[in-house]
This record gives sequence, structure tokens and C-alpha cells, in this order.
Amino acid sequence: MKYIAGGVCAAKGFKAAGVFCGVKANSSPSKKDLALIYSEIPCAAAGIFTKNQVKAAPVLLDMELLKNGNAQAIVANSKNANACAPEGMENARRMCQAAAASLNIPAENVMVSSTGVIGQRLNIEAIEKGIPMAAAELSSDGSDAAAHAIMTTDTVKKEFACELDIGGHTVHIGGIAKGSGMIHPNMGTMLCYITTDCAISSAMLKKALLAANSVSFNRISVDGDTSTNDSCIVLANGLAGNTEITAEGDDYTAFLEAFTAICTNLARSMAADGEGAKHLITCKVNGAKSIEQAETIGKSVIGSALTKSAIFGCDANWGRVLAAMGYSGETFDPEAVDVSFASEAGSVKVCENGRGLDFDEELAKKILSEKEVIIDILMAEGKCEATCWGCDLTYDYVRINGDYRT
Amino acid sequence: MKYIAGGVCAAKGFKAAGVFCGVKANSSPSKKDLALIYSEIPCAAAGIFTKNQVKAAPVLLDMELLKNGNAQAIVANSKNANACAPEGMENARRMCQAAAASLNIPAENVMVSSTGVIGQRLNIEAIEKGIPMAAAELSSDGSDAAAHAIMTTDTVKKEFACELDIGGHTVHIGGIAKGSGMIHPNMGTMLCYITTDCAISSAMLKKALLAANSVSFNRISVDGDTSTNDSCIVLANGLAGNTEITAEGDDYTAFLEAFTAICTNLARSMAADGEGAKHLITCKVNGAKSIEQAETIGKSVIGSALTKSAIFGCDANWGRVLAAMGYSGETFDPEAVDVSFASEAGSVKVCENGRGLDFDEELAKKILSEKEVIIDILMAEGKCEATCWGCDLTYDYVRINGDYRT
Repeated sequence: MKYIAGGVCAAKGFKAAGVFCGVKANSSPSKKDLALIYSEIPCAAAGIFTKNQVKAAPVLLDMELLKNGNAQAIVANSKNANACAPEGMENARRMCQAAAASLNIPAENVMVSSTGVIGQRLNIEAIEKGIPMAAAELSSDGSDAAAHAIMTTDTVKKEFACELDIGGHTVHIGGIAKGSGMIHPNMGTMLCYITTDCAISSAMLKKALLAANSVSFNRISVDGDTSTNDSCIVLANGLAGNTEITAEGDDYTAFLEAFTAICTNLARSMAADGEGAKHLITCKVNGAKSIEQAETIGKSVIGSALTKSAIFGCDANWGRVLAAMGYSGETFDPEAVDVSFASEAGSVKVCENGRGLDFDEELAKKILSEKEVIIDILMAEGKCEATCWGCDLTYDYVRINGDYRT
Repeated sequence: MKYIAGGVCAAKGFKAAGVFCGVKANSSPSKKDLALIYSEIPCAAAGIFTKNQVKAAPVLLDMELLKNGNAQAIVANSKNANACAPEGMENARRMCQAAAASLNIPAENVMVSSTGVIGQRLNIEAIEKGIPMAAAELSSDGSDAAAHAIMTTDTVKKEFACELDIGGHTVHIGGIAKGSGMIHPNMGTMLCYITTDCAISSAMLKKALLAANSVSFNRISVDGDTSTNDSCIVLANGLAGNTEITAEGDDYTAFLEAFTAICTNLARSMAADGEGAKHLITCKVNGAKSIEQAETIGKSVIGSALTKSAIFGCDANWGRVLAAMGYSGETFDPEAVDVSFASEAGSVKVCENGRGLDFDEELAKKILSEKEVIIDILMAEGKCEATCWGCDLTYDYVRINGDYRT
């Protein structure tokens, strides 16, 4: 497997576009707000969505449409979440229909997503004018524009792709994602679209999506807030020409490994670009009695406001790591826990068997000043491990979210 | 029942003191760091403690000592949590023994608490020198000094007392508490000490403590971080002369009502003084199918980083309230939810049946600019309600916690 360029257009037969259509009144045309992703032929499709009880209209619509396991296009807008909004479902359907008309495909094969402010009426008229523009701009190098069009408070686009060999055929997998705040995916993810030319059944595609999601998107948190709009949709058009994957085996394993790598890169980049973040926090938990225990403890640590604030301050306050482990809900022996901080600047053990060690504060400060900081936890419960990703809590997070609607 | 002054010394036979003994090297003598509370006669006692798996040594010791339901004194230091610290249990016992020696009572009747930084060795020598000083200063107007001595990042002392009539006898209940960060009590509370001269058995005292705790301390959150040191201890010396309360009945009901009022005031004052807080957020949930549902939803709302940031910005971003309700884990009909914001400046309904209303943004801003902001949620699931308290997320929370240890 090797990483390549091209995002959602890396796989054969996929085109994308991103345009400005004015979803929000008086917004600047320099920020695109409408994305379109299209496959030349129908695709096996799978999706996972937010577990939030309050689901946006496009999420409810996609869940319904995906029951047949097929799709051919995705249309998505930023600047408005179409959640808790008047005429939400009607407007989601109108988005579908407009894209179907422009692409000359059935409306039931168009997935639709929205992201932005909750509770305001979607400007469907602007979107209906924008969709034909986007359709006209579809191209095999349109992934960059689509990735930018779905961004909200994101500061960098999230786009990854790779290629691998399956049975002598070169298969491509690529994805784009957005996500910066209200990030605490629960079984679903953020807005994320992945395309592949791999031939794979929709059942196996769903299986791969669930497996990859559980170790990538479900292991990140920016602020503990699970969105109303989390969606991850994958389209597979089969144009790579490999024998269709319809069961587990070497081909599925190779596909899953590469697919998981793309999901993990997208997830990490969301955590690193968390609203206001100065640091990506990677928490590695080793020596757990189960993967679930490792994951629960890791997510508790990256979710701790106090730990996040300490990392912002480059303060090696490991007591907060222990406290967050302790309130995770998992049972473990606190007197058998070791904690180290690490980064490109080195590594320092700060706690052994649940007790503080004397350590070099200057070195610790240097380690914690790097962009990516690793919190390395070793327990004595078993041999399982998990890695989770979060970010620090900063003044900018508060500033960004103190006045998001205006 | 009427509120009175005096805190933990409001009840007959109780004395308190707060002194500076230098728990932390080079700290200013202007901030007291050692508190002592003492009853002239032995008391029925009850306590509840953190459910964090990582418990501080004094918590583990108190849990053991309280098994007999008796106590006569409480000694507590700030500036060091004696959690995950070398010789933690040994130092907790030495604190007990020093207080017992100074007060000439058995060591098993002395409760001990610590609060402050996790993971550093307790300066027990300073405390052992300080305890005789505190014992010498015990007085019936010492509650103020004790309340100040247990403060860490608190900006105001938390102290309440009341009196009520039970069977023709005037009974007093008073308490002090500290708590500003790492506040998300889970069955236990923060450091909180309550005294009463009511005659009540330790079993009924424990029952009252659990009942009051469930609607007060367990309904506040500052940052979602459950401390290693949460402790709430109540001492009842019986000097009011009422017939001892040994079962439910009118006397117990009257006691519980007043006791709950004191706990609620202490809890609210902790939330209002949350680290860096500019606003106390009171979330009232009505129309729930159970008290548990109302409480779970209310705690999810006050715990939401995005909702907290919006209140900091005086931004009526009710979509975040809906989102936080939705990820609470509770099942409910999102299309039957109304939300209003209220304060001393008025009230404005912003969401009806799960959809946004047009509302006066200027009025909303004015309402949200008050110190106490109420988020009023009405569901259509049933007739149960709960009120929870939190605070906004501010630059100062990040500043305070970016460099707490130094």
C-alpha cells in the first residue's frame, strides 16, 4: 500500500467539484459551500451515521436511501446543518432531486449531507441554483475543491488516498472529511466521504466501514460533543477490475488494512485540526485487559478538560491523566499504572506504579511544546492496547465557540 | 427553616479554625492551608466519597474510619491532594494522629481530607506543626477561617447555615465547601463539611446525606472531571436536644428539607464559582418520563463544551442544547422539545417542537448577559423534572488550568 494524491478522485471513474452558491446570506464567495462527488457508474455503498437522538434531516434521509446498498453521487453543503430546521426533510429531498436531475441519475442514488449551524432554515433556493454549476464543474481533479467546500471551522482540508494491489489489480481508495468542533463521534463519524474503485459487495463494504470506524473516527474527540450530522459514506464502483470481494479472505484483509489507514489519517487530521487546537494529543493505552478497556480509558484521558488544558500549557500534570483514567468507568489497579509523555523532542516517564517520579521539568516542557504529544499509559491488567486522538483546550476554542452563529 | 450565619459553627458545640502552615514551599502566609473542625462531644457521622477508581489516601482512610458511624473532628489541608503520592496513606494517618493528640480524642474519630495538586509528596512536617496551632485557635466563629483554608482556585468561600424547629427544639445545620475545578461529582461530592446539632442516628444521617447529595452535588459539573478527592462529611452531635431521629417521619422530613437546602446552596455556589466562570448556568428539565431521564439530559447540557462556550459568548445557540440532549444517551422525541433562555432580564422561547423560532436576538443577548442564566427545557415524555447547575467555559478556565502546578 502506498499513499498517493487525488482524494476522492484517486479511484477510477470518480469526479468531484466544489463551488460557492451562497447558502448563507452575505457570505464571501471565496469560501466554497457546496460539494458534489460522482461516479460514472453506480456503486456499492455503505454509510454510518450519528447515534445522536437528534438527527439532522439529511442523516435520516441517507439512512433510508442506503438500505438498498447502492449510490452513485453525494451532494453536501456547509454553512447550515439542516438540523432542527423548518422544512428540513423537504429541503433534503429537494437537494437530492436537484442533484439527480443535473446528473441524470435516479434521486434514490444521491446521498445528501449538510453541516453548519443547527436550527436555521436551509437556503434551498441557493443550493438548487448551485448544483447545476457544481455538476458542470465535475472533474477528476475536483477533490481539493470538494474538500474545501465542506469545511466549516476547519483550518486545513482533510484529504488522503492510497493504492494497493488486490489480485494483480491496482485498487485505489481515497477520502475527504471535515470536522473541527462538535467532534466526539459515536459509532458514526463526521462528514467523511471515501471512494474506491475496488470491486466489493455492499455487505463487505459496510463490514469494512464498521471495522475501520471503530479504530479511527470512534477514537477521536475534540470537545465531547456528538454532532447531529455525523456521516461517513463510502462508494465502491468496481472499476479496478479485481474479482469482487464478497467474503473475508486475503483480498478483504488487504482492502481493510488500506481502508483503515485512510480512515485513521482522516480521523487524526480532524483531531489535530480541532477548533483552536495547538496540539494533537495521541493517547496510547497498553496493558489493558481488553481493547474496550484500553479504548474507554484512552477516550476518557483525551476528553478530560483538565488534561487538555494542561497540554495547552505544556504542563506535565500527569495527576490529571490518572484522575481521568479513574473516572472512565473502568476498573483497574491504580497502583500498577505507569505514565510517560513523549514527542519528537524525546520521552520522559513521570509516574511509575501510580506514584510520581522526580523528572526533569525542563525536558518535560520541551517535549510538551511539540505539535504532537503522546501520552503513553502502561497498565498491568492484560495485553490489549488502543490508541486515541484528541487535542488541547485553548483560548481559541472558547473564542470560536463563544460566537459561532454570527 | 431560615438561613443564618455561622457555617459549620452555627450548630451548638462546634468550633472551627483555619491557619497557614506552609503545605507548599514558598507559598504566601496570606492564604490559609489547614482547616480544623471539632465537636465538643462525639457525633454520629456519615460521609460519601468519590467514585473515581483512583482515590486519594485520605479518602480511603475516611471510608475505613467511617464504618463505625462516629467521628468528632475533621482536619483538612489545601495545596496538596495527597493522591498518587509517595507515603500517601502513612501521611494521612499521621494527620489523623496529630489532630487526635492536639484535641485529646481517639485518632479513629478524626476525619482527614486533602485537596490540591495530585502526585506530590505531602509536606506532613508542616501539617504536624500546623495542627496544634489550629487546635489553639478553635472557636465558635472559626467557620470563615476554615472555609478559606480549604479553598484552592475558588474565588469565594462557600458557607451556608440554617435553623429549623424539630419537635419544639431549634436545630441548626451548617456547612462549608470548596470546589472550582475538577468538578463533576459522581455519587460523592467535593470537599464539603456539614455540621448539625440535630440528634439523629448515623444510619438516618447517611440516608439524608445520600438523598440530599443526589439532587445537589450530583447535579453540578464544572468540567466533567471527577476528582480523586471528592468528600462530603457530616457530623451530628445531638446538642439541640430534640428526640433522636431514628426513622422516617415528620422530624426526618423537616431535617431532610433543610439539609437538602444547605447542600443545594453549597452545590450551586461551587458551580457559580467554577474555574474562570462568568455565568452560573441553571438547566431545568421538565416533562421527562423519569427523574433520572431529566437529570441525565440536564447534566449532558450543562456538561457540553459547546453550550458552555455559547453562554460565555452570550450567544443564544440553542442548537447546541438540542445536540447535547440528543447525545445524553436518553431516548426522547426531539420534535416535542421546547427551549427557552431566561434570567433576571427576562425570558425568550427560542425553540418549539424541535424547530427554531424567530426571536429577538437583542433581547436574547441581554438575557444571556446576566450572571445566572436559566436554560428551560420542556419535553413531552412525562411529568418528571430535575434542575442541574454548571458554568460557562471561558478563557480563564484554560488559563488557570494551563499551568496549575506551578
